[in-house]
Amino acid sequence: MKPTKKTKVKRLPIRGFYDKETVYKILDANFICQIGFIHEGFPVVIPTIFGRKGDELYIHGASVSRMLTDLAKGISLSLNVTQTNGIVLARSAFNSTLNYESVVVFGQAELIVDENEKVAALETITNQIIPNRWQEVRLPNAKELKVTSVLKIKIDEASAKIRTGAPHDDIADCDLPIWAGVIPIEKHYGKPIADPVLKVGIPLPKSVKCLIK
Amino acid sequence: MKPTKKTKVKRLPIRGFYDKETVYKILDANFICQIGFIHEGFPVVIPTIFGRKGDELYIHGASVSRMLTDLAKGISLSLNVTQTNGIVLARSAFNSTLNYESVVVFGQAELIVDENEKVAALETITNQIIPNRWQEVRLPNAKELKVTSVLKIKIDEASAKIRTGAPHDDIADCDLPIWAGVIPIEKHYGKPIADPVLKVGIPLPKSVKCLIK
Repeated sequence: MKPTKKTKVKRLPIRGFYDKETVYKILDANFICQIGFIHEGFPVVIPTIFGRKGDELYIHGASVSRMLTDLAKGISLSLNVTQTNGIVLARSAFNSTLNYESVVVFGQAELIVDENEKVAALETITNQIIPNRWQEVRLPNAKELKVTSVLKIKIDEASAKIRTGAPHDDIADCDLPIWAGVIPIEKHYGKPIADPVLKVGIPLPKSVKCLIK
Repeated sequence: MKPTKKTKVKRLPIRGFYDKETVYKILDANFICQIGFIHEGFPVVIPTIFGRKGDELYIHGASVSRMLTDLAKGISLSLNVTQTNGIVLARSAFNSTLNYESVVVFGQAELIVDENEKVAALETITNQIIPNRWQEVRLPNAKELKVTSVLKIKIDEASAKIRTGAPHDDIADCDLPIWAGVIPIEKHYGKPIADPVLKVGIPLPKSVKCLIK
């Protein structure tokens, strides 16, 4: 993708990336995005689950939701996915920062009308959170599909911003007797908690075993 | 805080909270927010570090940053903080969801001009990430303060949305031989990685020891 006026990383341009591989890798490692849009003249930011397949992102929700109804009109949106990987402690407050991977997408959403495309998009969203979970669950029925809207967003204006590694202190500060380094931030999955009403004898599914392994 | 037209949780209103205690608890457990604003007619969402003290949020960045320059004009903004606590696996795709805590704030930012107030706000931001780190670092000098803008956002229009607990399947689905439950999502701090150029004999500081304990 070419950096555009909107996606070009202006602050610390060395941290900016525009290639699909980098952008998609960050998207694929996450499942929550923040969507910004304009409602009655005011900016609104709402978090939601997303899925990616090819050059499209999918989001879903209740058909009557304000965000989906607004976005289905094809208004402009901005979308952010951010993953924090570490706290970077420099010797100075000024050079202290975070290690992170972040993607910003600009575009419009489009309501998916075709039922097969809609079901496939819901599969992508479900499997973005837990790969292959779709193959295990009771699939949506006609009534559920009717009250659910699914939107697609073409990823054609996007950029990533990444910071990794050690702190960068001013040379003069490196002599100070202050600890500097990185505290990694790690995401773990805890021990699965079975539904209190789960029938006896149903084992943990393959999808969950793979996720928490 | 009173729910306003903007902050009232419309979808699943049972998940909506408007009391300061709930809203501030979520804000205080996090340090990344997504800020939405309108730039040249388009919505933009940018992640940034924040700190909270009293009824104010603080954000900072390079004085020349587009976001800070725009926001310093007092334009409307929306801000979201989201923490995901678990994957909720229902027997049906339709009832599968996440456990999360999320806050949305609407308001305007104001540039902090007073130098003491600015330094105090930077202290709040630094300590939001690691409590008491400010007491250990080399504090900002005049030159660093000059190239940094700090903005304050009064929290007077805000709401929280929270989901906790087990999946809620349709009664008919509960007989299906499908596993249901919650996979907790846990954030951990990893082993601190000292700066490769850290002088020998500087121990881990108190702030880090408390954080990773």
